[in-house]
Amino acid sequence: MTTSADAFLALDFGGTKLSAAVTCRGEQTWRGLERAFSKPGATANDDITTMLGLARKVLSGVRPVAIGVSFGGPVEPKSGTVRLSDHVPGWENQPLADALTDEFGVPARVDNDANVAALGEYRFGAGQGCHSLLYLTVSTGVGGGWILNERVWHGAEGMAGEIGHTVVDPNGPPCFCGKRGCVERYASGPFIAQDAREELDANPARESSLRTVVELTAQHVSRAAAAGDAYACEVLERAGWALGIGIGNAVNLMNPQRVVLGGGVTKAGPIFWNAVRQTAAATARREITLDIVPAQLGDDAPLWGAVALAEEA
Amino acid sequence: MTTSADAFLALDFGGTKLSAAVTCRGEQTWRGLERAFSKPGATANDDITTMLGLARKVLSGVRPVAIGVSFGGPVEPKSGTVRLSDHVPGWENQPLADALTDEFGVPARVDNDANVAALGEYRFGAGQGCHSLLYLTVSTGVGGGWILNERVWHGAEGMAGEIGHTVVDPNGPPCFCGKRGCVERYASGPFIAQDAREELDANPARESSLRTVVELTAQHVSRAAAAGDAYACEVLERAGWALGIGIGNAVNLMNPQRVVLGGGVTKAGPIFWNAVRQTAAATARREITLDIVPAQLGDDAPLWGAVALAEEA
Repeated sequence: MTTSADAFLALDFGGTKLSAAVTCRGEQTWRGLERAFSKPGATANDDITTMLGLARKVLSGVRPVAIGVSFGGPVEPKSGTVRLSDHVPGWENQPLADALTDEFGVPARVDNDANVAALGEYRFGAGQGCHSLLYLTVSTGVGGGWILNERVWHGAEGMAGEIGHTVVDPNGPPCFCGKRGCVERYASGPFIAQDAREELDANPARESSLRTVVELTAQHVSRAAAAGDAYACEVLERAGWALGIGIGNAVNLMNPQRVVLGGGVTKAGPIFWNAVRQTAAATARREITLDIVPAQLGDDAPLWGAVALAEEA
Repeated sequence: MTTSADAFLALDFGGTKLSAAVTCRGEQTWRGLERAFSKPGATANDDITTMLGLARKVLSGVRPVAIGVSFGGPVEPKSGTVRLSDHVPGWENQPLADALTDEFGVPARVDNDANVAALGEYRFGAGQGCHSLLYLTVSTGVGGGWILNERVWHGAEGMAGEIGHTVVDPNGPPCFCGKRGCVERYASGPFIAQDAREELDANPARESSLRTVVELTAQHVSRAAAAGDAYACEVLERAGWALGIGIGNAVNLMNPQRVVLGGGVTKAGPIFWNAVRQTAAATARREITLDIVPAQLGDDAPLWGAVALAEEA
């Protein structure tokens, strides 16, 4: 294996999807990119084997100078040890950075996906030039990551960024975490779909094009809202309202320079974005300049963040 | 004037009270401490003149090596320029650090009171040894300051720490800031007293020892609760509940190592503290270790923080 003095290997262990990519210092395109689905019933070792295959393919004989990894679950960032995965068994206390260093003979750094995506948007996307930012991904869950003083802020125990489980209405509907009215309870894709379905079922007189949809998703709600369905608009506006309070509260606490929103739900269009921005503005102190922008890197944010991690390795 | 290589001058411009103190490097007691009330109708220039008098008195002919200042209002911390005071006219854009440097010929640093008190508790009080902490003062208002990576976190525009105006119940009572259900709306001394009075007036059948109090304050509520008054306990528990949600949300977002609570309202006793701790624990993620402790420096926290600022000058 020849070493390239410039090549970075970026790995993304998502819940169900594995991605490996190679880029070179100063470049903003991939030299190689491979993706695979995690096999049904796969264990941590299976995923590592699949990922190593993808990595060898994109490297095609070149040894990288460093490796960066985004992991979909809690990580001890200093050692690069995975704490656990909610999706794949066997990840408990896996020393992932060490295993990759053993395999490739180069330094490796690992962090959780929200932190890595925040770093990606900061270095290569919508957060470039900001000293501080809050990144949110609104998707199956609602996660967050902080960049403060140009570095990821992990918190004392690596748990910072849990905006999804900040409470915006203590009398709101019950969340799976045991509390009521969390941001995630209103704004995640599955909860948007669930609320849309349950309220239609509970109100037979309410008209909506969503009534005929068999397996209702948040994407159906977004599309119906874009087509003018008043009920779908209401559902999306409530999600945006909850996210807006959560962002307004976070901004009052930390006053970051920018807020970057990524994840599938944020593709819901202007009805959603207007609700987020208006509620955040009404919640934040007047003295604070609100700058809420869409993420730029899309699904590649964790991979680009992994490149930034590799640069620091 | 002789210079002492070790003397720090600490100044505290409160809303209505001015304090000046001198200590020496490595000491944790005052060599001299003088306080005066701001004269009724005083302007910024009057307060500066009074403060210079106090400073000369505590210095008694010694020139300090540096000056630190706590100011009760927003400040531009890099330049040490005051933005404004809500209490005293004429403070708009006053270059306070420069004026003190001109007067004493030594470097001066200025920050707002919540940040300076956070720094004081971190260096000399309940936050010693912590890399990160959230300090709250619960008094006439509810203010906050962050220490992250052993430094004050100001935010992009110096507005970080506004936990008092994070929303904990969007359907709650109206706050003077224009929103509903802010932490400060429930937990500040004046609002505790107002709620206690208004609910008694609205419920003539409700029994409470507070009914006979003429000018009801939060301190009366605390004392009645300590004496077993059930209504007073309810009022205090609601304040603690709101503060607990605000702290739980802040802890989910930032995961600081410790939370330090100061200010008059936090002297309300175990009924208040239990409500704060229980609600914060129920709001914070289980993976986060909650460590909520009382401030140690009392009313002197801003002055000790000013010493820490002077050390950095």
